[in-house]
Amino acid sequence: MSVREMIKTYPAEINLDRELIADALLALIDCSQACTACADACLSEEKVADLRKCIRSNLDCADICDATARVLSRHTGYDANITRAQLQACIQACKSCGDECGRHAEMHEHCRVCAERCRRCQRACENFLEAMS
Amino acid sequence: MSVREMIKTYPAEINLDRELIADALLALIDCSQACTACADACLSEEKVADLRKCIRSNLDCADICDATARVLSRHTGYDANITRAQLQACIQACKSCGDECGRHAEMHEHCRVCAERCRRCQRACENFLEAMS
Amino acid sequence: MSVREMIKTYPAEINLDRELIADALLALIDCSQACTACADACLSEEKVADLRKCIRSNLDCADICDATARVLSRHTGYDANITRAQLQACIQACKSCGDECGRHAEMHEHCRVCAERCRRCQRACENFLEAMS
Amino acid sequence: MSVREMIKTYPAEINLDRELIADALLALIDCSQACTACADACLSEEKVADLRKCIRSNLDCADICDATARVLSRHTGYDANITRAQLQACIQACKSCGDECGRHAEMHEHCRVCAERCRRCQRACENFLEAMS
Repeated sequence: MSVREMIKTYPAEINLDRELIADALLALIDCSQACTACADACLSEEKVADLRKCIRSNLDCADICDATARVLSRHTGYDANITRAQLQACIQACKSCGDECGRHAEMHEHCRVCAERCRRCQRACENFLEAMS
Repeated sequence: MSVREMIKTYPAEINLDRELIADALLALIDCSQACTACADACLSEEKVADLRKCIRSNLDCADICDATARVLSRHTGYDANITRAQLQACIQACKSCGDECGRHAEMHEHCRVCAERCRRCQRACENFLEAMS
Repeated sequence: MSVREMIKTYPAEINLDRELIADALLALIDCSQACTACADACLSEEKVADLRKCIRSNLDCADICDATARVLSRHTGYDANITRAQLQACIQACKSCGDECGRHAEMHEHCRVCAERCRRCQRACENFLEAMS
Repeated sequence: MSVREMIKTYPAEINLDRELIADALLALIDCSQACTACADACLSEEKVADLRKCIRSNLDCADICDATARVLSRHTGYDANITRAQLQACIQACKSCGDECGRHAEMHEHCRVCAERCRRCQRACENFLEAMS
C-alpha cells in the first residue's frame, strides 16, 4: 500500500497529522473491500435468505467508505464541514454493518473478519473526527 | 430515466412515499453528473488555478451524491440511521458545492448550471430527511 | 436531468457530437440506477437463492456503468484508448446483465425494466464506440 | 489489509488462484487511492495548468480501478466475459495514466509514486488476465 508514501508527497500544507490521515485511509479502503467481499460471500451461502440485511449493510458500507476515502484523499480546497459530515455518516455505516456482521460472526468467517474491519474503520474515523476539532 | 418506473417494481413494502424517494434519486444522480462535468469544465478553463476549490468541491460532491443515491436506491434491510447520516453528509456537500459554484456562476455557465443542481439536490435531500422523521 | 444542458456549457472543443455523448450518459446513469435497484429488489424476493447470478450481474453492471459515465463526462485531456476500452467493458456488462435479467423478466417486473435499460445502454455505448472510429 | 484474509473465507469454489486474485485486488485499490491523491496533489501545484491531462488520467484511472476491484472482489455468479473486458479497460487506463504521470515523475514526487503504482497495477491485471485463459 502506497497510502503513507503518497501522503508524504502532497506538496502543500495539511492542517492534520499525515499519519492519522493515512491510518483512516487504510482502514477505509480495507473496510470497503471487506464489505464488498462479505456481501458476495453472503450471496453464495446456502441460507442467503437469512443474510439479506447483512448484504444490504455491506453494500451501503462499501459505498460510504469509498466516498469517505475519496474525500479524505483530497487536501486541496479543504472544507471541514464536508469532511466532518461524511465521517459521521461513515461512522454510522461502519457501526451498523459491524453490528450486523457481528451477529453472524460465529456462523460465517467472512462476517467475523468483516465485522472486525468495520469496527476498526469506525474507530479510525472517530479518531480522525476528534483530531479535527 | 427509469427511476420512477423502477421504484414502482419494488416487491415489498417501503415505509416512505415512493414519489419522494424518486424525486431525491433523480436530483442526486443529476447533481452527481453535473459535478463531474463541472470539475472537468473548470479543469479546461484558462484560469484553472482560480478554480481549484471549485474542482475539489465538485469531486467531493459527485462522490457523496453517488454514495447517497446508492443508499436511497436500496430498501431491503433498511437502516434509518445510515440513510439519515448519509443524507446529512450529502446536504452539506451540496450546500458547500452550490455555494462555491455559485461564486463563479456569472463567469462560467457550467458553474451556474451546477450550482443550481446542487441547490435542487440539497432541497430534495432535506425534504427526504424531513419525511423520515 | 441536466446532462444535455451541462454538456453545452463545456468551454472547449469536443471532437464528438455532444448530443451523442449526452445520449450515452443518460443511458448509462439510468442503467446504473436500474441495476442497483434491481439487485436490491431481487434481494427482497422470497426466492432470492434463485437470483444470485442476477444480483451479481446487477452489482457489476452498476459499478461499470458508473465508471463509464464518469469517463464520458470528462473531455479535458481526452484519451481515446481509455474511452474505447471502458466502453467495450460496459457493452459486455450490459449485455451479460440484460441477458440475465431477461431470463427473469416474466417473473419479476424489476428484472423486465432493468433488462430493457441494460439493452438500451448497450446500444448507446455501441453507437458511441462506432462514432469514435 | 484484510484482502488476503477475506478471500480465504469465501465459502464456495473459485476457479482461479486466490493469491493471484488478492495480488490484483491489492494493486487495484492501491492504484486507485494513489490516482485520487495524485489528482489532488496536481491540483495544488503552482503550475496546475500544465497538469490538466495528468489530472484527467488520474480521475479516470481511479474510477476504473475502483470498478475493477469491485468486479474482482465478487466470485458468486462469475461471468468471465465481464471480468475479462473490465480487466482490459483497466490495463489501458493504468498504461495511459502511468505514461502520463511518468512524464512528470522527475518534477513531482506524487507523479513518480503514482506512475509506479499504475505500472504495478497494469502488471497485476495482465497476470490475472493471462491466468484466466
